[in-house]
Amino acid sequence: MAKDFVKREENYSEWYNELVIKAGLAESSPVRGCMVIKPYGYAIWEKMQAALDKMFKDTGHQNAYFPLFIPKSFFSREASHVEGFAKECAVVTHYRLKNDPNGKGIIVDEDAKLEEELIVRPTSETIIWDTYRGWIQSYRDLPILVNQWANVVRWEMRTRLFLRTAEFLWQEGHTAHATESEALEETRKMLDVYANFAENWMAVPVIKGVKTANERFAGANETFCIEALMQDGKALQAGTSHFLGQNFAKAFDVKFLSKENQLEYVWATSWGVSTRLMGALVMAHSDDNGLVLPPKLAPIQVAIVPIYKTEEQLNTISETALRIKSALEAKGISVKYDDRDTYKPGWKFNEYEFKGVPVRIAIGPRDLEQGTVEVARRDTLEKAVFQITDIENKIEHLLEQIQLNLYQKALTFREQKTYKADTWEEFKDIIENKGGFVYAHWDGTTETEVKIKEETKATIRAIPLNNPQEEGKCIFTGKTSTQRVLFAKAY
Amino acid sequence: MAKDFVKREENYSEWYNELVIKAGLAESSPVRGCMVIKPYGYAIWEKMQAALDKMFKDTGHQNAYFPLFIPKSFFSREASHVEGFAKECAVVTHYRLKNDPNGKGIIVDEDAKLEEELIVRPTSETIIWDTYRGWIQSYRDLPILVNQWANVVRWEMRTRLFLRTAEFLWQEGHTAHATESEALEETRKMLDVYANFAENWMAVPVIKGVKTANERFAGANETFCIEALMQDGKALQAGTSHFLGQNFAKAFDVKFLSKENQLEYVWATSWGVSTRLMGALVMAHSDDNGLVLPPKLAPIQVAIVPIYKTEEQLNTISETALRIKSALEAKGISVKYDDRDTYKPGWKFNEYEFKGVPVRIAIGPRDLEQGTVEVARRDTLEKAVFQITDIENKIEHLLEQIQLNLYQKALTFREQKTYKADTWEEFKDIIENKGGFVYAHWDGTTETEVKIKEETKATIRAIPLNNPQEEGKCIFTGKTSTQRVLFAKAY
Repeated sequence: MAKDFVKREENYSEWYNELVIKAGLAESSPVRGCMVIKPYGYAIWEKMQAALDKMFKDTGHQNAYFPLFIPKSFFSREASHVEGFAKECAVVTHYRLKNDPNGKGIIVDEDAKLEEELIVRPTSETIIWDTYRGWIQSYRDLPILVNQWANVVRWEMRTRLFLRTAEFLWQEGHTAHATESEALEETRKMLDVYANFAENWMAVPVIKGVKTANERFAGANETFCIEALMQDGKALQAGTSHFLGQNFAKAFDVKFLSKENQLEYVWATSWGVSTRLMGALVMAHSDDNGLVLPPKLAPIQVAIVPIYKTEEQLNTISETALRIKSALEAKGISVKYDDRDTYKPGWKFNEYEFKGVPVRIAIGPRDLEQGTVEVARRDTLEKAVFQITDIENKIEHLLEQIQLNLYQKALTFREQKTYKADTWEEFKDIIENKGGFVYAHWDGTTETEVKIKEETKATIRAIPLNNPQEEGKCIFTGKTSTQRVLFAKAY
Repeated sequence: MAKDFVKREENYSEWYNELVIKAGLAESSPVRGCMVIKPYGYAIWEKMQAALDKMFKDTGHQNAYFPLFIPKSFFSREASHVEGFAKECAVVTHYRLKNDPNGKGIIVDEDAKLEEELIVRPTSETIIWDTYRGWIQSYRDLPILVNQWANVVRWEMRTRLFLRTAEFLWQEGHTAHATESEALEETRKMLDVYANFAENWMAVPVIKGVKTANERFAGANETFCIEALMQDGKALQAGTSHFLGQNFAKAFDVKFLSKENQLEYVWATSWGVSTRLMGALVMAHSDDNGLVLPPKLAPIQVAIVPIYKTEEQLNTISETALRIKSALEAKGISVKYDDRDTYKPGWKFNEYEFKGVPVRIAIGPRDLEQGTVEVARRDTLEKAVFQITDIENKIEHLLEQIQLNLYQKALTFREQKTYKADTWEEFKDIIENKGGFVYAHWDGTTETEVKIKEETKATIRAIPLNNPQEEGKCIFTGKTSTQRVLFAKAY
């Protein structure tokens, strides 16, 4: 297993890319911007899916599935939506190939041209709201609380594994409500679900906030987000929840008969997280020795490695190892006992370290004599000797500790990398030389926001929820301001 | 809930279509041939996915994800594959739209034409084997046992909800092996997994067999299949498992260094089932009163309906109902307690009957006095009075009985609809007037097979595994034959 890879300090971007590939999470494909998610990476994504799916169902949502293709004309119906999404997208124009009459493979059959082009969905608001028109007549049909797990395509020019790919996997929730306040409540509820998932499963602390008009989802009245800080001091938007008002209901003519017998437009939300979270997970915790995975999302939580010289020793060790494995599995802990004789223990240690397995147990003949095992934790790289008695409870406790420690470490890092800037010079200096989150006053205009971005590449990540109100002056224009907002360079 | 729908005898095809729509399983979308899978239908599909996914993992497979798009040239590499799949497909030719200079919405930007067209995957052998070339160097890298859950697109001209749609959801296993025998073993193993799933989860008996050369998957050396019989006497192919030989390894140049230090081509299998199984499930068990679902795949296994006049009665009944609900849920049984006061009990009874909920429990004031409940089973429509004592074990047992009964009923139906034909007249008579499976002798040529199809629309569904050998004469040509094969009209 490859330890000979770039260090974070040398080149963070290359470190990330090499790690993703060498740890077997994903790789590029021959299709521009599309990735192959490899089994180890997909196993982490499956754990993310399972946890999120349960949270969605516990909050009353059901899954459904809508078409991959969207008729081109649907995008023109919602004015800002088309600007945001219909431009860079995959367009299906034909439905048949034929043999090249010149014998050079196969070519597009020009006789099989679609009357109306189909867009490979970049997001599904339009096709879903067109469908909801048929599902909603009266207030009794509301709310509709639906989620979809799907692939989507956005024709990105610069792609990076997980962080920005032309095709990616995600979930998109699309809900319909009778009142504005209920839709707003749903928007906030799902933001809380995302924050809960990021912090308690991914061990990544996030700031909940609302986007500026300029950073809003195309078609939303308000976009809420969670923002995380990566180890290179750049922010990563980890999830968004949109209050769509009645925009899509109006665009697709979706009305309902209220309790008061009035015909009214339906209120909407949508919310999503994607395989981008895989990138956030890697970048938040991993180190120069490889992946570091929080126990709750690790496909293998414990690896057991026997250390032996003779077959007889292996047999005795295996008995104990398998007993420990069963005891751990009975507690729902996933364990791999690696008794392959094609690799040496040292190679296996490196392998599990590189792949981010949270706990490694080594068992040698002397351990057996003493009724102990050697336990190494991936987060701190510390080793300790554990008595085998009651080992399953000790390991369970250790996994919980690791989960908490990773969160705490990431939180401490973020706190150290969070600044206040009161002048333009100070602001530029932090953004250019330190990185991290910067709280600063802003005059509230898109114009200033855009200029700050042009000059520093920093964007307003969010106006935090429950933001303390304080008087101040915009760092760029000097105009009065009532609150600081959160700036950072971002992925 | 709509009971006023067509009966099977009147128009089986319309019965099916109306049932799928009115029971809330799926509906057509504005995109030609693409369906919307509604929450109730998707909940059944999720149960199918969970059961199958566990079976795949228990047999050593891991999930991964490959790109939605396949470069056009990839299809030309495997000669028979391109004939079978690349023709009727969705072709992406452009990656950008722009505002129409004439102000009429948005149009394709001709400047954003792809150098090579991309095909929306109809199946993924080509892109996966192109990827495997990078994953396989030596015998130590084998076997690769990978599965993908994904959407695929085949541009079908005549579509029917679930049974044949342009876009459908499926899983496709793609495995790579060092030896022919290991690949063959894998092909058969996965066929057994599919048969096990069809019979023990869907309660649909199937015949395992091998396809004739004419019906083989495009690119396979041998296609194995499971065939089920629907209530209208037509067969439905419910799953296929392909032995691909070294065809894709040769097309994509995937070689490995064997233990004997020889460079050899890799052996392959692929296998898949799709949302088509949803159609099979509906058509195999449902009746003129609506859906009938086997308990193991029913999203709601037990519905409890209170029968009351006063609020006080409802409160007392609810206490008992919720106690029963908890006791059932503790056994892993999914229960819905329907205490909505907006609908009458009779309406609810119809609703759950129509939606195929296996067991309905009704509780009224007199039941409470006597310590009983009324239990209705969906498969036989029988009602019985159960003592509440130990109710959870009785219901658990009843659900098992229903599962077995549905299988037995479908098996008996198939046996009654299975014939032997020894002459052409007899064969035609059965196919035209009775329907069902027909075992008949065939001379083994594609020519005869095609002619039989032209004259009767019947196809050879399979040459059953472990088929009894017997001398006979081909029903069509009179030539000698050593075994009967399985004919039927098919979906």
